[in-house]
Amino acid sequence: MVRNVGGFTVGRGSLDRLPAFVDARRKAVGGTPQVLFLVDSFFAGNQTIIERFGAQADDIIRFVDATNEPTTDGIDAITNEIRGRLRDTPATVVGFGGGTTMDTAKAVSNLLTNGGRAADYQGWDLVKVPGVHKIAVPTISGTGSEATRTCVMTNAASGLKLGMNSDYTVFDQMVLDPDLTATVPRNQYFYTGMDAYIHCIEALGGSYRNAVGDAYSRETVNLCRQVFHADDMMSVEAREQLMVASYLGGCAIATSYVGVVHPFSAGLSVVLGLHHCIANCIALNALDEFYPNEHAEFNAMMKKQNVTLPTGVCANLSREQYQRLVESTVVHARPLTNALGPDFRSILTDERVIDIFKKM
Amino acid sequence: MVRNVGGFTVGRGSLDRLPAFVDARRKAVGGTPQVLFLVDSFFAGNQTIIERFGAQADDIIRFVDATNEPTTDGIDAITNEIRGRLRDTPATVVGFGGGTTMDTAKAVSNLLTNGGRAADYQGWDLVKVPGVHKIAVPTISGTGSEATRTCVMTNAASGLKLGMNSDYTVFDQMVLDPDLTATVPRNQYFYTGMDAYIHCIEALGGSYRNAVGDAYSRETVNLCRQVFHADDMMSVEAREQLMVASYLGGCAIATSYVGVVHPFSAGLSVVLGLHHCIANCIALNALDEFYPNEHAEFNAMMKKQNVTLPTGVCANLSREQYQRLVESTVVHARPLTNALGPDFRSILTDERVIDIFKKM
Repeated sequence: MVRNVGGFTVGRGSLDRLPAFVDARRKAVGGTPQVLFLVDSFFAGNQTIIERFGAQADDIIRFVDATNEPTTDGIDAITNEIRGRLRDTPATVVGFGGGTTMDTAKAVSNLLTNGGRAADYQGWDLVKVPGVHKIAVPTISGTGSEATRTCVMTNAASGLKLGMNSDYTVFDQMVLDPDLTATVPRNQYFYTGMDAYIHCIEALGGSYRNAVGDAYSRETVNLCRQVFHADDMMSVEAREQLMVASYLGGCAIATSYVGVVHPFSAGLSVVLGLHHCIANCIALNALDEFYPNEHAEFNAMMKKQNVTLPTGVCANLSREQYQRLVESTVVHARPLTNALGPDFRSILTDERVIDIFKKM
Repeated sequence: MVRNVGGFTVGRGSLDRLPAFVDARRKAVGGTPQVLFLVDSFFAGNQTIIERFGAQADDIIRFVDATNEPTTDGIDAITNEIRGRLRDTPATVVGFGGGTTMDTAKAVSNLLTNGGRAADYQGWDLVKVPGVHKIAVPTISGTGSEATRTCVMTNAASGLKLGMNSDYTVFDQMVLDPDLTATVPRNQYFYTGMDAYIHCIEALGGSYRNAVGDAYSRETVNLCRQVFHADDMMSVEAREQLMVASYLGGCAIATSYVGVVHPFSAGLSVVLGLHHCIANCIALNALDEFYPNEHAEFNAMMKKQNVTLPTGVCANLSREQYQRLVESTVVHARPLTNALGPDFRSILTDERVIDIFKKM
């Protein structure tokens, strides 16, 4: 079964409904429970926003540094710190930020009730009991973290980049307020928004399909087209459309698989430390042979929005680095099988994979 | 907040997953709980289907006669009968059928835990505690009952046609198996499928809009177009598309309002006893002045699918009947305001409403 997000509210100013959602949880739990707010540190010092949370004196507002994407060690450190500050299970965990912050909220929520360490739950359906109730408030659009059943973390020891794939990882509520994405830097807005476009064109190009996922993917791609072919991709209308695209794209990918782009993107992240969304864009830009139409459209959108991509990111690497890029790409058998069939390695030979990386 | 259905599974043969969903609920509840299957009486005697439910000896399989749409008295009678046969709260209620059967499952589920009579909960947010866990298995596509937060019932005493609008009315799980709609009569398949098309074109034509609802509505209309402009609206691909359209159309209407068609349709149901979906089609067919493009498309679809509508349904009525039609139409202030603004009565005068009914 595909688990849906419990429910949502959408529209400009809908952040004002967050205090009522939080209070409803306090009442449901009973007593005087604390609430945990995990907030992208971009908003640290933004009292205007933070006051709108409706936090009480003994609630915990913990800022999350999104400079780097989540690691299992980082999640464990935050969870242990939070445990020390909590009297009891909180009424709800609010994840206020982008993919990194929302994924952190999901992971911490699961760990608070399941115990143990983040690495214990990397994989499929390893979370044993429901996490703490959690609310997503995305402040940048594209990753779909607000809708998916995973929270991606890198394990520094093993090099494994894998989430807690579980029904328990899905958010209970979601506040979609397009006013919150007005201050995102343009390039980041574009790269992150393209994550929704990319995972949906990958899903639609794959062989593991279902009719609900296809419908979500089609509408996500439509919305991304409206946003990124528009004169102003950051108008309030466009920001609202992209926020919906992110949600529906997350719903889509929760029912299907990605394709060739995400494995190459994962290679860039694991070996070179590039962030997920910009890595996706760099990967798609080198995969014109697999996605010719989408590659052309992506370039038209970049041009229209006057966005540029870094170049030469894989130039002059060592032979060992190229080999690690290959390994960290072809390890993703499910999406590559989805896109290219079970014999994907006869198409993606080491040489061809390295040639593609060298184009980036 | 808009509450989502808990989760779903989709695809041919997915009915085979129902026993596992039901068993998971037995385990979650503990002990040896019964399960209640409310099944459209169309399937009475179809042992091939019924055996696939995985029912146990003391589960209750209760057939629901969908000849007439649900009434509050009818729901009370079923609920009382079921109460007499249950040892305790059932592990889950399965609603296996069309809008009438699914709405019955929703209402019975709420009444089993809330007590009282169906009429006590007609309105908004009157249900006090969550109903019994419930699973929708639609066997005809279009009404969106599988996704909405209401279960429409007519109160014979008051003439009120109104549902239990509540977050607690939303299904917990949904099994979308397009094999189950293969045996629907063609006309009924068309009329019911058009319900999804109609409530979405009404939503998109209204002034109360939101970006998520719009996205659902657009994709629903797209899917309906693919189905009803196709050579064979009942191919397995088309039946799967229409099943998804029904779900997404339900999601759409759960976040927005209908327009001019549903109020006229309600008039036809309340005064003349016409079923909801055929009444919608008859109403849209007389509302070309409000929905010119959709009216033309609807007629093209009817022609393509070789479906006909009854005519003269409002010919030769008494003055009193026409007046009741007017009253039972204009009472729907929310959708009419959504479509025409708060002064809708200056547009929909008694005379004009009667003229429209006379065209049907």
